[in-house]
Amino acid sequence: MLLALAAILAAAKLGGHLAVRIGQPAVLGELVAGVVLGNLDLAGVGWFRSLTGDPSIGVLAQLGVLILLFEVGLESTVREMMKVGASAAAVAVLGVVTPFALGWGVGALVLPQHSPYAHAFLGATLTATSVGITARVLKDLGKTRLAEARIIIGAAVIDDVLGLVILAVVAGVIEAAASGAALSYAATALVVGKAAVFLVGALAFGVALSPRVFATAARLRGSGVLLATALVLCFLLAWVASAVGLAPIVGAYAAGLILEDVHWKDFTSRGERSVGELVEPVGAFLVPVFFVLMGMRVELATFARPGVLAFALLLTLAAIAGKQACALGVWGRGVDRLSVGLGMIPRGEVGLIFASIGLGLTLHGERIVDASMYSAVVIMVIVTTLVTPPALKWSLERRARPRLRDGAVS
Amino acid sequence: MLLALAAILAAAKLGGHLAVRIGQPAVLGELVAGVVLGNLDLAGVGWFRSLTGDPSIGVLAQLGVLILLFEVGLESTVREMMKVGASAAAVAVLGVVTPFALGWGVGALVLPQHSPYAHAFLGATLTATSVGITARVLKDLGKTRLAEARIIIGAAVIDDVLGLVILAVVAGVIEAAASGAALSYAATALVVGKAAVFLVGALAFGVALSPRVFATAARLRGSGVLLATALVLCFLLAWVASAVGLAPIVGAYAAGLILEDVHWKDFTSRGERSVGELVEPVGAFLVPVFFVLMGMRVELATFARPGVLAFALLLTLAAIAGKQACALGVWGRGVDRLSVGLGMIPRGEVGLIFASIGLGLTLHGERIVDASMYSAVVIMVIVTTLVTPPALKWSLERRARPRLRDGAVS
Repeated sequence: MLLALAAILAAAKLGGHLAVRIGQPAVLGELVAGVVLGNLDLAGVGWFRSLTGDPSIGVLAQLGVLILLFEVGLESTVREMMKVGASAAAVAVLGVVTPFALGWGVGALVLPQHSPYAHAFLGATLTATSVGITARVLKDLGKTRLAEARIIIGAAVIDDVLGLVILAVVAGVIEAAASGAALSYAATALVVGKAAVFLVGALAFGVALSPRVFATAARLRGSGVLLATALVLCFLLAWVASAVGLAPIVGAYAAGLILEDVHWKDFTSRGERSVGELVEPVGAFLVPVFFVLMGMRVELATFARPGVLAFALLLTLAAIAGKQACALGVWGRGVDRLSVGLGMIPRGEVGLIFASIGLGLTLHGERIVDASMYSAVVIMVIVTTLVTPPALKWSLERRARPRLRDGAVS
Repeated sequence: MLLALAAILAAAKLGGHLAVRIGQPAVLGELVAGVVLGNLDLAGVGWFRSLTGDPSIGVLAQLGVLILLFEVGLESTVREMMKVGASAAAVAVLGVVTPFALGWGVGALVLPQHSPYAHAFLGATLTATSVGITARVLKDLGKTRLAEARIIIGAAVIDDVLGLVILAVVAGVIEAAASGAALSYAATALVVGKAAVFLVGALAFGVALSPRVFATAARLRGSGVLLATALVLCFLLAWVASAVGLAPIVGAYAAGLILEDVHWKDFTSRGERSVGELVEPVGAFLVPVFFVLMGMRVELATFARPGVLAFALLLTLAAIAGKQACALGVWGRGVDRLSVGLGMIPRGEVGLIFASIGLGLTLHGERIVDASMYSAVVIMVIVTTLVTPPALKWSLERRARPRLRDGAVS
């Protein structure tokens, strides 16, 4: 485990270095370093592939992505988030409806022999946005405070809720069809209700309570109290989020949003570092573990089957095109719509979770999602993940350049 | 897992606060908070007890103790360590021989019906020093740069090697007696040889190579390179240490010793923070997890059996008295011998590892270490662990006080 951790960190920094050298975000290098390590089994070195199932590395990676979203959340406030709320909601809805329709269409076109349930499931795998990659690219480029960043991440949070609903409905419809019973509207409503209560409750309670929590914490003796208090809040909200069925990163992001610099003025006024500065080294250690592991989970061998590959390419195009509809949901001026659309592209682990749930569903003894459909979904996830860092960097800098030429340096 | 982590961090900080309030090191509060949480099963709440077997929490705790020893190592250099080398070696040898003899004696006195092998094994469980507690107390009190600190930790490192040898010899003798074969001197020599090669090799190579490693790392682009490089070195040496049969914390401490501020002047000269400052928040997160978990593993129910308790108390007295012989090994003036003796007291997990190996050894179908002996060892470990923080704090401050009275403020 220790050797693995050392190898992963070293690979992350070397990969990050090479990516930055060719003008790409460091995260792309970490992902590619992971892809290389994970696929060394093709060259006879299977050790790294075996690490993808190691629970210890998995735990550190999961903490890494929590810390990342917490850090990104720290750079915005609930108030700033509210300002882009309407845009984020519109972006989220468009970013769920269009890919769902396109995914269904691709399924119906390429796999006419499968049931419409399978097509609907394929559409569902295209809906959820995995925000880790985009959050990291924005962080690598120092753009987390842009309105675009808040819209993308806000929309991804709402997507997570909508994805839950779609999954509950699609899985519910299939199970109802399989058992001949009616779809349980109450169960579906419960899923939505719990998620909504969490989001509203966490933000409202958090804003009201967190100043008091930190004021109390500031009276505690001993070192490391500020960092511990912030992490306790982050882990608690992540746990509550997962308890209501949302992704834990949604809770971590909410915790980051709630916290504001003013909360720890008691600490910083006596010379301690702020939460952002304290969390940064923790993230520098754990976040790369997540991205290298994500790269290591890519099995290049999946790309070798030509029939699957063509289907996967169509699915990927549907996934990318579907999220570009998000651009239409952005309200107000001065916001780069293309960047929002590109930022919504990555499907990451969320698409895989959907697909693996599909692998477990059967209708009249037949699996809803078969192995080749699953492979195609995996390829779609890989491509959308790897394509986002360079595309988003290009789009954000394309926007920055003319501004500089006009002399309007913000 | 997230809820557990939040609860552990919160309990650590509350316990630490209360300990500091009553003038004790924070680590005592973390241990006691762990004892309370872990024994809530006596009050019907078994959830925390179940966490002691959770591998995710275990991984974070193990990383925590590595980071702690790495941090303590960072505060000394190899050169400073060499200066106290003779004292540390003498302290280590005395701190192994005396408790071994006393433990054997207590065994022979209380359990005359057991074989001399069992008595020898009992002696062996008293030899190894678990340095985590002492390192943390020194850190809580800001005394890690004292000569006493280096002697204690250097002696604990040598103890780890000697403990390995004793364990190899005692287990080898028992296995030889069981199978009727002769003791393998070659196997025993190999154990010692590997450990010695590691210690000399790591320090020599490390001192020669690490400036070059950091100079190369300083040319890498991307953020977090310095922290990652330091952690890679720490994890690599910890892994090598465990590969040669030493405790991983010995490797982490060696990594800390090797690194010096001058190695990262390329980084700090461009405004980055030093390794010490970067590692600190990582430690603030992970180190308390180790100590709370250590407390949680204490089963107060063990104390309830009176027969075991008397035996355990004798064993504990042997353990404490045995290490006070260490004071005789300290050379040179101005070093507080009592503090060195007290600092060597904790047995921590090392004694438990020895005892659990003993549980697995049999001679003529009889277990060498039976359940009541194991319980007594567990109680000895608990008491030596909990008694050290207040004793060491008292002894270090008893020494500081008269100095202040003489006006000789150092």
